[in-house]
Amino acid sequence: GRTGVPEAVLCASKSVAQVEAILKEAAMAGRRLLFTRLEPAAFEALAPECRAMLDYDSLSRTAWCGSLPPAGAARDGIGIVAAGTSDLPVAREAARTLEFLGFSAPVVADVGVAGLWRLMRRLEEIRAWRVVIATAGMEGALFSVLAGLVDAPVIAVPTSVGYGVAAGGTAALHTALASCAPGVLAVNIDNGFGAAAAAAKILNKM
Amino acid sequence: GRTGVPEAVLCASKSVAQVEAILKEAAMAGRRLLFTRLEPAAFEALAPECRAMLDYDSLSRTAWCGSLPPAGAARDGIGIVAAGTSDLPVAREAARTLEFLGFSAPVVADVGVAGLWRLMRRLEEIRAWRVVIATAGMEGALFSVLAGLVDAPVIAVPTSVGYGVAAGGTAALHTALASCAPGVLAVNIDNGFGAAAAAAKILNKM
Amino acid sequence: GRTGVPEAVLCASKSVAQVEAILKEAAMAGRRLLFTRLEPAAFEALAPECRAMLDYDSLSRTAWCGSLPPAGAARDGIGIVAAGTSDLPVAREAARTLEFLGFSAPVVADVGVAGLWRLMRRLEEIRAWRVVIATAGMEGALFSVLAGLVDAPVIAVPTSVGYGVAAGGTAALHTALASCAPGVLAVNIDNGFGAAAAAAKILNKM
Amino acid sequence: GRTGVPEAVLCASKSVAQVEAILKEAAMAGRRLLFTRLEPAAFEALAPECRAMLDYDSLSRTAWCGSLPPAGAARDGIGIVAAGTSDLPVAREAARTLEFLGFSAPVVADVGVAGLWRLMRRLEEIRAWRVVIATAGMEGALFSVLAGLVDAPVIAVPTSVGYGVAAGGTAALHTALASCAPGVLAVNIDNGFGAAAAAAKILNKM
Amino acid sequence: GRTGVPEAVLCASKSVAQVEAILKEAAMAGRRLLFTRLEPAAFEALAPECRAMLDYDSLSRTAWCGSLPPAGAARDGIGIVAAGTSDLPVAREAARTLEFLGFSAPVVADVGVAGLWRLMRRLEEIRAWRVVIATAGMEGALFSVLAGLVDAPVIAVPTSVGYGVAAGGTAALHTALASCAPGVLAVNIDNGFGAAAAAAKILNKM
Amino acid sequence: GRTGVPEAVLCASKSVAQVEAILKEAAMAGRRLLFTRLEPAAFEALAPECRAMLDYDSLSRTAWCGSLPPAGAARDGIGIVAAGTSDLPVAREAARTLEFLGFSAPVVADVGVAGLWRLMRRLEEIRAWRVVIATAGMEGALFSVLAGLVDAPVIAVPTSVGYGVAAGGTAALHTALASCAPGVLAVNIDNGFGAAAAAAKILNKM
Amino acid sequence: GRTGVPEAVLCASKSVAQVEAILKEAAMAGRRLLFTRLEPAAFEALAPECRAMLDYDSLSRTAWCGSLPPAGAARDGIGIVAAGTSDLPVAREAARTLEFLGFSAPVVADVGVAGLWRLMRRLEEIRAWRVVIATAGMEGALFSVLAGLVDAPVIAVPTSVGYGVAAGGTAALHTALASCAPGVLAVNIDNGFGAAAAAAKILNKM
Amino acid sequence: GRTGVPEAVLCASKSVAQVEAILKEAAMAGRRLLFTRLEPAAFEALAPECRAMLDYDSLSRTAWCGSLPPAGAARDGIGIVAAGTSDLPVAREAARTLEFLGFSAPVVADVGVAGLWRLMRRLEEIRAWRVVIATAGMEGALFSVLAGLVDAPVIAVPTSVGYGVAAGGTAALHTALASCAPGVLAVNIDNGFGAAAAAAKILNKM
Ligand SMILES: Nc1ncnc2c1ncn2[C@@H]1O[C@H](COP(=O)(O)O)[C@@H](O)[C@H]1O
Ligand SMILES: Nc1ncnc2c1ncn2[C@@H]1O[C@H](COP(=O)(O)O)[C@@H](O)[C@H]1O
Ligand SMILES: Nc1ncnc2c1ncn2[C@@H]1O[C@H](COP(=O)(O)O)[C@@H](O)[C@H]1O
Ligand SMILES: Nc1ncnc2c1ncn2[C@@H]1O[C@H](COP(=O)(O)O)[C@@H](O)[C@H]1O
Ligand SMILES: [Mg+2]
Ligand SMILES: [Mg+2]
Ligand SMILES: [Mg+2]
Ligand SMILES: [Mg+2]
Ligand SMILES: [Mg+2]
Ligand SMILES: [Mg+2]
Ligand SMILES: [Mg+2]
Ligand SMILES: [Mg+2]
Repeated sequence: GRTGVPEAVLCASKSVAQVEAILKEAAMAGRRLLFTRLEPAAFEALAPECRAMLDYDSLSRTAWCGSLPPAGAARDGIGIVAAGTSDLPVAREAARTLEFLGFSAPVVADVGVAGLWRLMRRLEEIRAWRVVIATAGMEGALFSVLAGLVDAPVIAVPTSVGYGVAAGGTAALHTALASCAPGVLAVNIDNGFGAAAAAAKILNKM
Repeated sequence: GRTGVPEAVLCASKSVAQVEAILKEAAMAGRRLLFTRLEPAAFEALAPECRAMLDYDSLSRTAWCGSLPPAGAARDGIGIVAAGTSDLPVAREAARTLEFLGFSAPVVADVGVAGLWRLMRRLEEIRAWRVVIATAGMEGALFSVLAGLVDAPVIAVPTSVGYGVAAGGTAALHTALASCAPGVLAVNIDNGFGAAAAAAKILNKM
Repeated sequence: GRTGVPEAVLCASKSVAQVEAILKEAAMAGRRLLFTRLEPAAFEALAPECRAMLDYDSLSRTAWCGSLPPAGAARDGIGIVAAGTSDLPVAREAARTLEFLGFSAPVVADVGVAGLWRLMRRLEEIRAWRVVIATAGMEGALFSVLAGLVDAPVIAVPTSVGYGVAAGGTAALHTALASCAPGVLAVNIDNGFGAAAAAAKILNKM
Repeated sequence: GRTGVPEAVLCASKSVAQVEAILKEAAMAGRRLLFTRLEPAAFEALAPECRAMLDYDSLSRTAWCGSLPPAGAARDGIGIVAAGTSDLPVAREAARTLEFLGFSAPVVADVGVAGLWRLMRRLEEIRAWRVVIATAGMEGALFSVLAGLVDAPVIAVPTSVGYGVAAGGTAALHTALASCAPGVLAVNIDNGFGAAAAAAKILNKM
Repeated sequence: GRTGVPEAVLCASKSVAQVEAILKEAAMAGRRLLFTRLEPAAFEALAPECRAMLDYDSLSRTAWCGSLPPAGAARDGIGIVAAGTSDLPVAREAARTLEFLGFSAPVVADVGVAGLWRLMRRLEEIRAWRVVIATAGMEGALFSVLAGLVDAPVIAVPTSVGYGVAAGGTAALHTALASCAPGVLAVNIDNGFGAAAAAAKILNKM
Repeated sequence: GRTGVPEAVLCASKSVAQVEAILKEAAMAGRRLLFTRLEPAAFEALAPECRAMLDYDSLSRTAWCGSLPPAGAARDGIGIVAAGTSDLPVAREAARTLEFLGFSAPVVADVGVAGLWRLMRRLEEIRAWRVVIATAGMEGALFSVLAGLVDAPVIAVPTSVGYGVAAGGTAALHTALASCAPGVLAVNIDNGFGAAAAAAKILNKM
Repeated sequence: GRTGVPEAVLCASKSVAQVEAILKEAAMAGRRLLFTRLEPAAFEALAPECRAMLDYDSLSRTAWCGSLPPAGAARDGIGIVAAGTSDLPVAREAARTLEFLGFSAPVVADVGVAGLWRLMRRLEEIRAWRVVIATAGMEGALFSVLAGLVDAPVIAVPTSVGYGVAAGGTAALHTALASCAPGVLAVNIDNGFGAAAAAAKILNKM
Repeated sequence: GRTGVPEAVLCASKSVAQVEAILKEAAMAGRRLLFTRLEPAAFEALAPECRAMLDYDSLSRTAWCGSLPPAGAARDGIGIVAAGTSDLPVAREAARTLEFLGFSAPVVADVGVAGLWRLMRRLEEIRAWRVVIATAGMEGALFSVLAGLVDAPVIAVPTSVGYGVAAGGTAALHTALASCAPGVLAVNIDNGFGAAAAAAKILNKM
């Protein structure tokens, strides 16, 4: 990574053979490498010796090869908010990417705006972070509410959770972009990886 | 109106001559009639005797001919919330339609979610209404927040206030439809008239 | 539910384990709870003791735990119209939600506008309701026709039934929103739950 | 026209000089020619001798040069329905095109479905036609209702009358295409000319 | 059918039980009935006695119960053009619907505009028809070319054959609607049934 | 131009002062420079000494400063086809860009597919070109027909000429991209400049 | 501003009277206030005493009332890149907002990717910043190229500069969101204010 | 092929029987024929004698029957660039089509703009080609960067690789069309065949 943050391998449109080849090349070179969107079925299809090289998490569909920095070395300052249970896979993709990059980030879940008091109860904790990553689907109102309540920048990750006009995640994405609360920054739908990479770039420059 | 609520005359795509003809016919027949989207320039272009028959309001671009029920007779139970100053023309279209239909409705303005405490200060007042009409543009997060805080049904009127992905009002509309707070009902973008007509139908059935 | 209507659990994007956990927590606390979009396959995958706690309906894909109010206590005033046979799952989602909320609502089916006389035959019955919930797919012309014929507010639930330009339900949604008959209120595509929740809020305020 | 129906000149994107040149060439050759979308301002900008050659109608923005067949020779069998006053320019474009092609077509106006009884009063007259041209904007529910009530094919001309989700006419177009009543045929938004040309082709083949 | 053309049963979103019930009711009443979008798998799932009542065609996914008029009685005047092999299922849906309605219609296939001479070789045959039904996917240029070459009205059935910007059929639909050749009439994407119903209505009025 | 083709100055979103500054800088440096989308009103607003430096063409809204290569030196091999009169401004933008780049390109106009014989009459001439640039709006069927008739690559320039579903030019663009005739290459809507630049790059490599 | 960054007044949809009232109230209270999208014509329409209170910049259409912190106090660390001359108004909106918030930010202009060497010449300067704001229209390829070259987070502001598929700015927005270079964060189209507010929130947390 | 490039058989929407019939007819006539989008499962379903006639490649899903020109006879001048591993199937479809048409084309892979130096290392090789075919998904920034660096025309093949706003490939397509670098020509999403056919037409005219 010449930009402080390494590229990751997006496995969604790659064959088992391609993923194995990339992994072996990295292992041979002693390079640490992050894999995203590696579905459980695809992970199971990998050769046993490949699976053995990987630290895999099925909820977030992420994996990495190579060792992590010692736990005590993980930096803090970044936190993650998830509107509902259904947003947890994306929130976890962000958390795992941050772990890979040397950061430790708590996840505050189930604080959607339909029950505002749940969010209010956790506000003090959230206000301590220097960068907030927020994941929400449906209409994504959480992004605006959060940005109106905290000092830190809010990186919004719209999720594809929803149906009808919310199917695919564009309704939540548009909420993030059109938010009337200053300080919301958006990444692509379901892009927990990108949110984490950007948050790490911010912290790395501090 | 065979359905309890009379049709209105949508002037946006009618010529001056057409509006005058419709007005004269109603006056001749002694019928009360509501006109919407009558731009100030179109109102000025009407013949003086036509203008004299109309009660015109330029902010909401509404007009009516015929007398209103005596002020004391106006029913209450409906209230209107406007997220920002720019949403006031649409909020006023709803208020004027309600006045024409025999209801009196207060307007609570400038309570967008970027400053949540402003909304909280007015909450008790809003909670007293039986039907809430809410107007908001941009990302329309106000609809979800309101529906999570009040018992009454919330009729959301997305407005075309906004730019970029919010231009034209679809971002706010999708927020209203995809809201994860139960009880949000949507009308077309900028349709203050429709929201008021529906609210009146609800109250008429109580 | 602090707003008179409880949130429901949207099962579409939740794992079996997550649904079971939510159900057990509610049962433990003695809370009644409504589940929507619980596909038959997902219901079958639940542990037997979980299935035993649920009142499940496969047509509407809804379930609840906890007891209902005694049948005699169910309130009336709300009715449901379905344009075609294909709209029945959504109509039933509304009916089941209303049952859970303490209302009893009849369903009038197969009255699409291609055969207007079928609707006319049922009109007297429909006109007795205080709130009309209407479900229709394809072009959704039923919404406009109904709103022109009844005094009560019409809550339109566009369905995703259709193909070509009607695929996904936006054609019917746009008909609901752009209807030139005053008094149509829209919810998201296929959102029978939301229509029922809003209707209950209306009746609760009467 | 080698296909029974001549091409017309669409003036919308042509300069005054281009329209004049085309008109003079036709006049020189003694050819009859139809012009559509000739705005009043554009007509006024034509040289006086050009204006003198044209039979111009400002409501429909149509013009033609050359003589019409004698009035008595006009064929019948085609009729036009307009949902509202705002749809009359498009309805008239169809009527004028038919006149140019040797047909005489009545226009039945102001029969939108918000007031179904108005349509019912005119039904007998409409049922006598062999081809029905219908113009409607907003949600275009009229197309479905008509096709369910008459034997003749219905050529739907969606109009750009509307706002919000109906702006530009796609909501009405999608209603025409997705109609569950068999026998609706659609042309482009505001294309009264195309509807008339197709109707004439049908009659010419009878 | 009070409109000269009976409604058909769209099986796409109906369960096996619903289709069986509808079929048995029709059989009991001695009514002829047309079924569309009955997938081979759905047909196989029907009870044997139901399958025995149906005349099924797997390419077009259509079926009917009840007897046809004697073959000699079939009327002609309608013909069908298919741009490519992939458009044949839709072309056949139109042909089968016409057969059910008492018409016999030839299908001219594989005459897409990439090889214009193939179309030219069949032109004389096509010019003999009173109504042309044309099915085409991808960019649908065939609609414009045909309408420029024949006197008869062209009913365009855009098909969902295509990928990229043509996926789903809107590119071909827009070509049909925006065609600069007068006389093209459009139905919904893949709607061979609707094209046939409209063509029959036209012929029935001759 | 390090790529064989110089960048041009897109004037659409530049102020008069900016255009003047760019022009003077180029003149000072003795550089030839092409300006596109310079509206007549913008050209008139330039200082007289700036206008004097420019060779301006109002139909195509193009201008250049600096001398052209001697007329005899212009290379041929590229030709331009325009479907209708309304497409001529875009066709001329391509022709003027080619002239600036040292090519001479004939324009064959008014050969839209509604009158196929007009195209056929010019086919021999068109078949002599090594690269064909084609401009068409509405449904753009011309692109497919041409590519099926000539050996040379066809660079399609969809134009924004059209209304309804063709408004803005996407219908024609999609026809170009989805054409079932091999060898169609597309540029952006109304981008005559880009088509010419690409054609020049092709010829420069021969 | 309870969130470290004050809300600004979006003047686009406000009347002259509304802007004057907001300004006077702020002045009365001694509050500093930022105005965006105040068109030159709207600024000229303000009362003289209102204009006198404002520091106005016509290129960016921004204004503020109240004094700035002393020039020497301005913080650095943020820089702005503009792809072309046409993107300068948006870049300036960001620069002015930052000035109002106490930051000083250089603008590097005319470094679009069509001439990559221009960007490379300025790279060292850009690499010194802690946060990069980038403005680009058309296809916005600059966002990806920058994020691949610098360590700092890149806040992408897509601009509405462009035509055809780029009209309105969604092509550039989608490039920012879909960028395969990690670390790109997006704000709404033309939202220089929002980019600056987020950058300030980042710096405020360092 | 009367246009120098034969049509290919698009197998995506054809049945096994249809593909077999087309193949046998070509074999019988001794015609060479190219098949695209022949999925591995579809290839396996063909009769053994059909499979034996085909040269099949599973990565690109292409096949042909008939002999190729002798290897030494293959012409060069065309090259292919692939942004990432996921774009290789489309790149290979182009390469195989070119091979069938008598050209030999190298593929340069894994040179996306997130790591610009990888592209720079291969630039000399790419600059030697007369036509560049480039395949890229996500945001497709590679098209602009390439066109700014090489003299040859760039045929952009956007791929459907991506998610969120890039799903389906329109983001990359819009980048190709809106590129501010002159000389980019676009084909449909994933259309490696079309790019190759156009490149061959270009070379055939040299
Ligand atoms: N602002 C409005 N929004 C929506 N519908 C309206 C509005 N004003 C009037 N209408 C309805 O639109 C129709 C107008 O029809 P007309 O005035 O005949 O063109 C009537 O059904 C009105 O009730
Ligand atoms: N069918 C449904 N349609 C719309 N909203 C729903 C539906 N079912 C549940 N909800 C709401 O969606 C949210 C579900 O959140 P969760 O179950 O925590 O992911 C809650 O606010 C529910 O009230
Ligand atoms: N393939 C088809 N395309 C369009 N409409 C159809 C088709 N088949 C049946 N229909 C119509 O769609 C409606 C089906 O209604 P139902 O079967 O009651 O859901 C009826 O009006 C049918 O005439
Ligand atoms: N008509 C046009 N269409 C597409 N690109 C153009 C056109 N005219 C100029 N350009 C390019 O657009 C960019 C304009 O950049 P600038 O003038 O610096 O804002 C340059 O890359 C030009 O080559
Ligand atoms: Mg949410
Ligand atoms: Mg708001
Ligand atoms: Mg319906
Ligand atoms: Mg209508
Ligand atoms: Mg075709
Ligand atoms: Mg054309
Ligand atoms: Mg740019
Ligand atoms: Mg790429």
